[in-house]
Amino acid sequence: MSSRLVWNGYGKAAVRLVKVDRGAARHGLHDLTVEVQLQGEFGPTHTDGDNAQVLPTDTMKNTVYALARRGPVDPPEEFGERLGRHFLGACPAAHRAMIALSVHRWDRLSAAGAPEEHAFARGSAERRLATVTVEGTRAEVEAGLEGLGLLKTSGSAFTGFLRDGYTTLKETDDRILATDVEARWKYARPPRDYGMAWSAVRTALIETFARHESASVQHTLYAMGEAALANCAEIGEIRLVLPNRHHLLVDLTPFGLENPNEIFVASGEPYGKIEAVIGRPQHP
Amino acid sequence: MSSRLVWNGYGKAAVRLVKVDRGAARHGLHDLTVEVQLQGEFGPTHTDGDNAQVLPTDTMKNTVYALARRGPVDPPEEFGERLGRHFLGACPAAHRAMIALSVHRWDRLSAAGAPEEHAFARGSAERRLATVTVEGTRAEVEAGLEGLGLLKTSGSAFTGFLRDGYTTLKETDDRILATDVEARWKYARPPRDYGMAWSAVRTALIETFARHESASVQHTLYAMGEAALANCAEIGEIRLVLPNRHHLLVDLTPFGLENPNEIFVASGEPYGKIEAVIGRPQHP
Amino acid sequence: MSSRLVWNGYGKAAVRLVKVDRGAARHGLHDLTVEVQLQGEFGPTHTDGDNAQVLPTDTMKNTVYALARRGPVDPPEEFGERLGRHFLGACPAAHRAMIALSVHRWDRLSAAGAPEEHAFARGSAERRLATVTVEGTRAEVEAGLEGLGLLKTSGSAFTGFLRDGYTTLKETDDRILATDVEARWKYARPPRDYGMAWSAVRTALIETFARHESASVQHTLYAMGEAALANCAEIGEIRLVLPNRHHLLVDLTPFGLENPNEIFVASGEPYGKIEAVIGRPQHP
Amino acid sequence: MSSRLVWNGYGKAAVRLVKVDRGAARHGLHDLTVEVQLQGEFGPTHTDGDNAQVLPTDTMKNTVYALARRGPVDPPEEFGERLGRHFLGACPAAHRAMIALSVHRWDRLSAAGAPEEHAFARGSAERRLATVTVEGTRAEVEAGLEGLGLLKTSGSAFTGFLRDGYTTLKETDDRILATDVEARWKYARPPRDYGMAWSAVRTALIETFARHESASVQHTLYAMGEAALANCAEIGEIRLVLPNRHHLLVDLTPFGLENPNEIFVASGEPYGKIEAVIGRPQHP
Repeated sequence: MSSRLVWNGYGKAAVRLVKVDRGAARHGLHDLTVEVQLQGEFGPTHTDGDNAQVLPTDTMKNTVYALARRGPVDPPEEFGERLGRHFLGACPAAHRAMIALSVHRWDRLSAAGAPEEHAFARGSAERRLATVTVEGTRAEVEAGLEGLGLLKTSGSAFTGFLRDGYTTLKETDDRILATDVEARWKYARPPRDYGMAWSAVRTALIETFARHESASVQHTLYAMGEAALANCAEIGEIRLVLPNRHHLLVDLTPFGLENPNEIFVASGEPYGKIEAVIGRPQHP
Repeated sequence: MSSRLVWNGYGKAAVRLVKVDRGAARHGLHDLTVEVQLQGEFGPTHTDGDNAQVLPTDTMKNTVYALARRGPVDPPEEFGERLGRHFLGACPAAHRAMIALSVHRWDRLSAAGAPEEHAFARGSAERRLATVTVEGTRAEVEAGLEGLGLLKTSGSAFTGFLRDGYTTLKETDDRILATDVEARWKYARPPRDYGMAWSAVRTALIETFARHESASVQHTLYAMGEAALANCAEIGEIRLVLPNRHHLLVDLTPFGLENPNEIFVASGEPYGKIEAVIGRPQHP
Repeated sequence: MSSRLVWNGYGKAAVRLVKVDRGAARHGLHDLTVEVQLQGEFGPTHTDGDNAQVLPTDTMKNTVYALARRGPVDPPEEFGERLGRHFLGACPAAHRAMIALSVHRWDRLSAAGAPEEHAFARGSAERRLATVTVEGTRAEVEAGLEGLGLLKTSGSAFTGFLRDGYTTLKETDDRILATDVEARWKYARPPRDYGMAWSAVRTALIETFARHESASVQHTLYAMGEAALANCAEIGEIRLVLPNRHHLLVDLTPFGLENPNEIFVASGEPYGKIEAVIGRPQHP
Repeated sequence: MSSRLVWNGYGKAAVRLVKVDRGAARHGLHDLTVEVQLQGEFGPTHTDGDNAQVLPTDTMKNTVYALARRGPVDPPEEFGERLGRHFLGACPAAHRAMIALSVHRWDRLSAAGAPEEHAFARGSAERRLATVTVEGTRAEVEAGLEGLGLLKTSGSAFTGFLRDGYTTLKETDDRILATDVEARWKYARPPRDYGMAWSAVRTALIETFARHESASVQHTLYAMGEAALANCAEIGEIRLVLPNRHHLLVDLTPFGLENPNEIFVASGEPYGKIEAVIGRPQHP
């Protein structure tokens, strides 16, 4: 044989699920995108076109909808685990199931100050994330968020950096700092309430971003990660990706105008990209 | 001559402008995308490559930033008019200037219940729109919004429709109604306060969507337009475009499950598209 | 009554249709996105929620697929006309049907120099467009294309333009000219072969872009329109929209380097936007 | 200390570079998007806001443009290695530099059968990829491609799969198979010519897709990987990701019509996602 299957995975992506909770007069709304991936002993379909061990991805899609009917989809961490355990049972060749859930935001409308029972407005692009990996009897839960746009107009500097022959950037002690937060954290042990834990992390990230005296994106990223760990005891470590969405000060001097940090170009490309994993201290 | 210039227009699109109001301890943030278009006697550049009457689009971009520094950018209707009048002065060949502004949402952050002075979170994809067309001394102002996602889980039916040999749709007296509102309205006379007028129209659209007993998207669209006209005396007419973002009830019967309007597929394509212009009654 | 329906239209958008022609050993592939819109006497659904005259948009979707089976989808102009006439018959309240078709490109693969019978590669983002409006017994046909990216590295200048106090742009007699062509033309009378007419116009646009000594985007746009009219006698007029996709020369002098029109930033925002309608000369 | 920096990386993404080769009468055009990432001893900026070891991402951008001027950008594998070695020299705290390059397609225009010297049309969305990781004196080169859309109308089946209580999919021995190929491979040793090696792999992938009698996406994926290894001796292993872009047969029986594999809906969501790594056999 001239080649071999080193690794493989397959599944269904972009399964769009909306569930309405109609139990009470006030409806609940859950809007999720789900991805399922199985890994395991699927060699025969690759090498021989023998599909006897292949559960169709169409079946995975059906199962997401059916299990959403059979039980709650919130918190997504628990729905994901339920799905993962199901698929390991349904597909004997699979030894690992990975379920990735992304929750889209809807805000309840209110009219004349009173909340509406059945009407919602689409929220920001921020998504709550949950990824559950089930292997044997063990489930690993990663939670997170992405697309959370934050911007501050004060309290951000960038000075004292390394310079070389290609450096033209000026130092600044007052700039706009803007980013779209992506955060992912693993629970060392399950929190009592996934929703509350998620909110505690999110609040720590946002409040730290707002109040930190930033010497660099890295500096603020680290402070955000540290605050998240401090605010949620169950997290072992957190990964943060902070694109630096540059806001460039416009040079108005050709027109006889000063620009005291007032007029900016919001630029799309290129952008800085700062990433780190922050963990708890290691004990000897 | 074998051909002629029937119509022409040119300008700069996607000018990204962020202005920080630093006058008070609490900063203000304005995030706009601006488009400029001039129409007029620009035949020579087309037919002879003679650019003597062509103000560069690069200059238009510079001017947007400079005039944003020289005066307020809010309300966008007034900033747009200021830009339009400027360009007619700067470019004698132009007889019409069209300025289209799109305002991106940022929500002020609050920490521990108190609003932050300098920090913001990106809001939903909804944009406030203003389009100002200046011709001679006259300015026409169109306001609007787009990208406002709304969804209701009750109070929407679709029955009694026309059927032909290609009709398979079932009647329903309870479905999800979801849309992304695009609305544009012209002011017959300037309102006292553009921001208040805009909010009055937006509130009318949202509250009507939430509370209307909908027999069709058209039915709700018309009610929304009617409410907007009722809530803002200065509007002559309003145009609404309501895509029908279908949420398809999943058939769970193959799995021995009922689906009492609970589990849906949020589908992207295809989608219904319902449009109308609603005006005031004509008097004889 | 406090308001009235000034105008209305409704239909189905983003109907994705793929048709395989299996008649010969060599399969044909047609990949289209279709939009249907009806206009007419649909007041009762708006004002009273009476849907008796409303053909569901779901039926429109079904009809697109069924008529694609009953007859050819190529040329899109004729498929569109067939759809439009059908809908006017199926929906008595409609007095106008508008069908907009967009054709996606697939290129037949070849292996070892020989064309494959059944395999294709996705082509560029360019789409062929056809929009057919049927009213009574009359059909108006508009053809076009969009998303055709063109770039030339020589033969483009921009000098002698109008300057004011906000002008900082330098004159250049050698720049990159890049655009994404959008073109739409109306046939004054039907051509013998829609496909050949479309190709004749497209070839005229591309060859003129490549060879024109450009003094401005307007200058090249006009030449392209003129060539299209010259190359296709059935066209009455053509509308062209040419965004100016700026390629900015990088200033390398801080690093002791010249940049003889060699290194550029391809910028996305902002962009120039040049539009015109070119017609045939009017005779007195 | 309550937390620690487990891992970090930073850099500049989405650097858009266009280089024109003007050496000969026939210009060459290179259109790339470049990303730079450094990893290393950047703890002080995270924990103390001390930027003394931080080379600004703005400098990285400048360097990409300057080094593109100083030497060739093609093949991207060699340009990437040159950039990576430069950054390790310029930034002593960095111990690893990762450079990811994505090459956009432009096709030379021809007019009346003859190739144009200076004019190009944007090609398909396929991008050639190169990722170079430099660590100490060692450079690891990964090549690849993404966005290559392929479709076949014959020679694809899916039968004999595992069924459970949620399976409704019908077996088929003739379906459309469509995908967007993403492929990445590592060179065990440098090929003599990166461009020729890349073309050899690409040709193997495309021809195998076209001619393989497919029993499943996995089956075709494996055959594609095997052919790539056979066609390029320097590759150690190849990773393939093949989304299954479903084309759903339309049920026309309600309208009294058969559909002999002729009329399909091209669906966007959900989609199957098949991945594997194919390597050379291990020798004992």
